[in-house]
Amino acid sequence: MVYLTRKEHFNAAHKLTNPAWSEEKNKAVFGKCANANWHGHNYEIWVTVKGKPDPDTGFVVNAHQLSKLIKSEITDKVDHKNLNVDVDFMQGLLPSTENFVIEIWKILEAKVTGCELHCIKLAETDKIFVEYYGE
Amino acid sequence: MVYLTRKEHFNAAHKLTNPAWSEEKNKAVFGKCANANWHGHNYEIWVTVKGKPDPDTGFVVNAHQLSKLIKSEITDKVDHKNLNVDVDFMQGLLPSTENFVIEIWKILEAKVTGCELHCIKLAETDKIFVEYYGE
Amino acid sequence: MVYLTRKEHFNAAHKLTNPAWSEEKNKAVFGKCANANWHGHNYEIWVTVKGKPDPDTGFVVNAHQLSKLIKSEITDKVDHKNLNVDVDFMQGLLPSTENFVIEIWKILEAKVTGCELHCIKLAETDKIFVEYYGE
Amino acid sequence: MVYLTRKEHFNAAHKLTNPAWSEEKNKAVFGKCANANWHGHNYEIWVTVKGKPDPDTGFVVNAHQLSKLIKSEITDKVDHKNLNVDVDFMQGLLPSTENFVIEIWKILEAKVTGCELHCIKLAETDKIFVEYYGE
Amino acid sequence: MVYLTRKEHFNAAHKLTNPAWSEEKNKAVFGKCANANWHGHNYEIWVTVKGKPDPDTGFVVNAHQLSKLIKSEITDKVDHKNLNVDVDFMQGLLPSTENFVIEIWKILEAKVTGCELHCIKLAETDKIFVEYYGE
Amino acid sequence: MVYLTRKEHFNAAHKLTNPAWSEEKNKAVFGKCANANWHGHNYEIWVTVKGKPDPDTGFVVNAHQLSKLIKSEITDKVDHKNLNVDVDFMQGLLPSTENFVIEIWKILEAKVTGCELHCIKLAETDKIFVEYYGE
Repeated sequence: MVYLTRKEHFNAAHKLTNPAWSEEKNKAVFGKCANANWHGHNYEIWVTVKGKPDPDTGFVVNAHQLSKLIKSEITDKVDHKNLNVDVDFMQGLLPSTENFVIEIWKILEAKVTGCELHCIKLAETDKIFVEYYGE
Repeated sequence: MVYLTRKEHFNAAHKLTNPAWSEEKNKAVFGKCANANWHGHNYEIWVTVKGKPDPDTGFVVNAHQLSKLIKSEITDKVDHKNLNVDVDFMQGLLPSTENFVIEIWKILEAKVTGCELHCIKLAETDKIFVEYYGE
Repeated sequence: MVYLTRKEHFNAAHKLTNPAWSEEKNKAVFGKCANANWHGHNYEIWVTVKGKPDPDTGFVVNAHQLSKLIKSEITDKVDHKNLNVDVDFMQGLLPSTENFVIEIWKILEAKVTGCELHCIKLAETDKIFVEYYGE
Repeated sequence: MVYLTRKEHFNAAHKLTNPAWSEEKNKAVFGKCANANWHGHNYEIWVTVKGKPDPDTGFVVNAHQLSKLIKSEITDKVDHKNLNVDVDFMQGLLPSTENFVIEIWKILEAKVTGCELHCIKLAETDKIFVEYYGE
Repeated sequence: MVYLTRKEHFNAAHKLTNPAWSEEKNKAVFGKCANANWHGHNYEIWVTVKGKPDPDTGFVVNAHQLSKLIKSEITDKVDHKNLNVDVDFMQGLLPSTENFVIEIWKILEAKVTGCELHCIKLAETDKIFVEYYGE
Repeated sequence: MVYLTRKEHFNAAHKLTNPAWSEEKNKAVFGKCANANWHGHNYEIWVTVKGKPDPDTGFVVNAHQLSKLIKSEITDKVDHKNLNVDVDFMQGLLPSTENFVIEIWKILEAKVTGCELHCIKLAETDKIFVEYYGE
């Protein structure tokens, strides 16, 4: 079993506010992330799949194909977008990095073929990142 | 003359649209950066000053004081903000990285003491950055 | 279960010498790291916790609170210090990166609340790092 | 159990072509990587071992010795070489990153002493890397 | 005057051998870089232009257009290629990083419009890079 | 004229205290950097030379030779040392990054042959660096 990881990046805006809470409570819990007029990030995403190398190609997966899949399924839908407003699969969810990585997993797990999705790592800044293994 | 550089970072949202243009023209010129609902970045900023090292301290400038100056004058005002909406010194300007770096220069040049502001470098992503030397 | 990681950094001095050994043996085993007059590093630390995202916040942990905890419990005590001389929790231990990460784990495990400490990664240089999972 | 990782790097040329296939099929499957006249990479390799810190040294392994082992067994044999032509242990194999990491594992597992080889991570570019745990 | 830089990357193979010299002399001067069967690198290129921001766009240059220009004129011609064999504009030249950056300058200087080419920086590894300002 | 840069690194301990000042004044001016028991850094150094590429080699300078020169003249003398105590060329000087880069310049300028020393850049952390051009 070899694990192969492909990294991609995108830029997006978001804000963190729980609509069931007052502005004061949102500010107390989310701090600067609750700024009403949005803020944003350069996100980095690492998608890791696992499998046995194919004897004909030496590949667990064709990394170029994997890059195209991540692009068509995820980054084309979130790059230069507002996660709260523009992104279908985030509607009704707080766009924390945690919730975001779980939704990305659901989409990619159904689309990866010929190998198995192992982990998605998503970095909001160079100091904060999350990882999700599907359970 | 020794050049000392201090790096800081912040996150912000923005969009690029010229209010004198149609939506179509904005989209043609600015592409994804014209997305109506904002997008955002992790910005990195490098502030370079120059001077002779002080014989008593060995410093051109106290880098900790320079960091506090950048924080109070710039990053506190733009971190987790919307450059188009929330930031006083960007009002009436297109928030391109070019225009942004010039405004930051104007503010810091008036505040740096004991040495001379030499260059401000501002990176929007790890692939695009601008530099400004004050003229 | 989502894993969230927060990165912090600090600078410290140390040396590696076993007091039960001769200077020759220390030099043979520890090489340049045994230099009597100390040397130092910019350390990077990654603290990873795991848990289920809270439905009200989308957070496994508030990353800003986690940063404050790491700061008050660890980096305030070791930043710009000498690990052999100045740091209480390293007294009587060889300040190898391995021993250091185990002591940091013991402190943070008792202080993390609302989620579970999963891993601490500690880098001495960009070429050497250790990871500890608590057992 | 503490995990210690040492990073090294090297430069090499390779191409990906299955000799049982036509030039057209190779181009369709491997794309630019099938270029007949080779292309190359700056590879980064991370070797992770695990063990209990030795009470006399605080080390799982002497990282300087581990570096020398990686150098004598791997990087001296592949640095500034052609993986398809010059490297004995890659003969008869497609030099994909996946196949390459498995062969490196086989060599190092037999040579690491006093601790256990845990993982080898091998990056072809800053966007593609593989990991292998020996099974 | 604002300076804007766009970074791109590509992979290529090369070797350094002066055809007027013996194999021994080539080995003595170029060391491992003379390996007959090629070696390769992940190159990084930074293209810096300078100009006044356009009042209508805030741009010195549209960074997306600059990226496309670098791609069509340079990286499409060298990515996954052999600099000695496959690249027209390097024929008859030793493919040192120095000679390579000068040839890239000649091509891009003639193609950049609306602003002025200022500098090209080309990195062969993360430890060696060259810069050229056109004279 | 092409500029070539070679990067190296080393680790060292230091402290910043002006012997003519009281402990209180030192603490007020230098903060944590005045800690009596030392602290340390992973330093990165970039040495830039300029010249015309040699027609026989394509090189401004042989980067491997430049690396060996930096190693024998600088990093062998400061790596895993205490800048205040162990390093001859820093005696009698406050070991600020500014004073350090000037002394390194003096040593290397006298030793670089076949091209001209242009700049030395010295980073104390990833947030603070200095540059010196010899005047």
